[in-house]
Amino acid sequence: MTALHQRVRRTIQRHRLCPPGCRVLVGLSGGSDSVALTVLLRDLSEHGDFALVGLAHLNHRLRPTSDRDGDFCRQFGRTVGVPLFVESIDVAGYAQAQRLSVEDAARRVRYEFLHRVAMETSADRVAVGHTRDDQAETFLLKLVRGAGLTGLAAIYPQRGEIVRPLLDVSRAELRAFLDSRGLEWVDDESNQDIGNPRNRLRHGILPELELVYPSASAAIARTAGLVREDAQWLDEVSRERYDRLVSRFQAGLHIDAAGLLSEPPPIRRRVVLLALRCAFPTREIGLDHVEGALAVAAAETGGIDVPGGRVELQREKLVLHVQATA
Amino acid sequence: MTALHQRVRRTIQRHRLCPPGCRVLVGLSGGSDSVALTVLLRDLSEHGDFALVGLAHLNHRLRPTSDRDGDFCRQFGRTVGVPLFVESIDVAGYAQAQRLSVEDAARRVRYEFLHRVAMETSADRVAVGHTRDDQAETFLLKLVRGAGLTGLAAIYPQRGEIVRPLLDVSRAELRAFLDSRGLEWVDDESNQDIGNPRNRLRHGILPELELVYPSASAAIARTAGLVREDAQWLDEVSRERYDRLVSRFQAGLHIDAAGLLSEPPPIRRRVVLLALRCAFPTREIGLDHVEGALAVAAAETGGIDVPGGRVELQREKLVLHVQATA
Repeated sequence: MTALHQRVRRTIQRHRLCPPGCRVLVGLSGGSDSVALTVLLRDLSEHGDFALVGLAHLNHRLRPTSDRDGDFCRQFGRTVGVPLFVESIDVAGYAQAQRLSVEDAARRVRYEFLHRVAMETSADRVAVGHTRDDQAETFLLKLVRGAGLTGLAAIYPQRGEIVRPLLDVSRAELRAFLDSRGLEWVDDESNQDIGNPRNRLRHGILPELELVYPSASAAIARTAGLVREDAQWLDEVSRERYDRLVSRFQAGLHIDAAGLLSEPPPIRRRVVLLALRCAFPTREIGLDHVEGALAVAAAETGGIDVPGGRVELQREKLVLHVQATA
Repeated sequence: MTALHQRVRRTIQRHRLCPPGCRVLVGLSGGSDSVALTVLLRDLSEHGDFALVGLAHLNHRLRPTSDRDGDFCRQFGRTVGVPLFVESIDVAGYAQAQRLSVEDAARRVRYEFLHRVAMETSADRVAVGHTRDDQAETFLLKLVRGAGLTGLAAIYPQRGEIVRPLLDVSRAELRAFLDSRGLEWVDDESNQDIGNPRNRLRHGILPELELVYPSASAAIARTAGLVREDAQWLDEVSRERYDRLVSRFQAGLHIDAAGLLSEPPPIRRRVVLLALRCAFPTREIGLDHVEGALAVAAAETGGIDVPGGRVELQREKLVLHVQATA
């Protein structure tokens, strides 16, 4: 067991990613992250109490090298002695049919595929290769896109059956580990495309930050974990308060205004956001609407229009009227 | 009143920066931010219920152009018709004597000077010119330095008598406003020094981010405000819990371990951080120590050494032993 194995084991233990007796499937692209993940989990499963039951590779048919990646994964599966499941899906066609961006379509198709293979192999965990670098990139991306109201928290170590044991490890460490074992991987040339904002962060802005602050990525990823913990609990408290403060009527929701204003600002803001999203589920609700509704609750302004309806103060209730659709 | 005046007024109202009847002193460097702040506050004071009682300019004697800046401020004070208070302090000498960085020394000397002038002019608020850009820069700086455990929250709209009415406005907007009025300002050439990490962010990394995300600074500043609200309340809750869970004994502190572990992670983490900082006040306490102490509390590991002492679990108490100094 190397120091790297131990760090990955610590991540698994801290977040209880692989409970005793669990069966793990690995999502394998053939890139350095998922190849290293496979090797590390195979080694840990030999010392541990979980089983590595399979590898799942999806051919997205998006790049000329897709077939080469599949061949590589087949060969790699034989080398590590773990059964490989491969499927090929026309992601570009799916994106067009569903009116999704190729990126969103690829994500959806991939997670559906992983879930299907997990069912077939009776796996109860699907491990994917997101690293500390992915964590830092995602956090920065959400930050500059203004996702502060919700979702700044970046990548979760676990979401349902999906687990991410490499979130505390850098890509460079994984590549050094593979090199030290004489193991190879395939490069995804779409990662080099500077037209993609994530790659612009990865290859331009983050390296520049690290010139000034060598541990910038590690620091950002660590902060992302802390902010996630904070947000998770604030969301829980807010849902609890929501149940006490918000009630439904025929044409919308109302919120006990005095009760709302007696909550501290982080809870107040989240309760209003939850209520607006519940009343107007198909609309884009942003911080401006939340602040507008809070000003109405405090009687600082009269009623305001929001996408899909109107917010007014009526007899000490903040009323969220859903507009009747013609 | 321009739209800019209204936005600044909204910031003042939202954070209650200038309560009715208050007397405001402005910290004036002569740069665009503080010059615009002076003009905006003078205009707002004519429509509002606060008084602009003076401008305070400190000559830091750090740059060859320091005297030119002082002359500019004298002329500007006459133009806007507000009394100017000037002082000259050898900041470099002070830094050396107090073993501070020049940046830290300048900050300390400046705020002391502002406080002194506020006393002399019976001002109860001191307005300084920090902008949305400063907010974004500070947040990013703290993020890459790993200040996630505390203090990610960046610049406060108010801290004691200091208020920052420009936190929601960009530097570019302020300069356009000054241009539109035909008003001038002095440039601080030290802001161009790329050796300074903040300037590297300001002139290199943030503009590059804004090429991809035009509203990156605004988004970051907005998020900084939300994260600050969250952290402020979590800190309050944690101090409350701290009083219940932590007690003092002769050689340190102890914490009720079961009570601690029944708290949600964000509170647990903050209570332990507060306790470690209280027990070992002169030492550098970081996230590793907090996580180590929590592992001890959960009996996942035995006792651990921390800077200045040791943490152990004894009869259901997490004990923070302060090392006797020889």
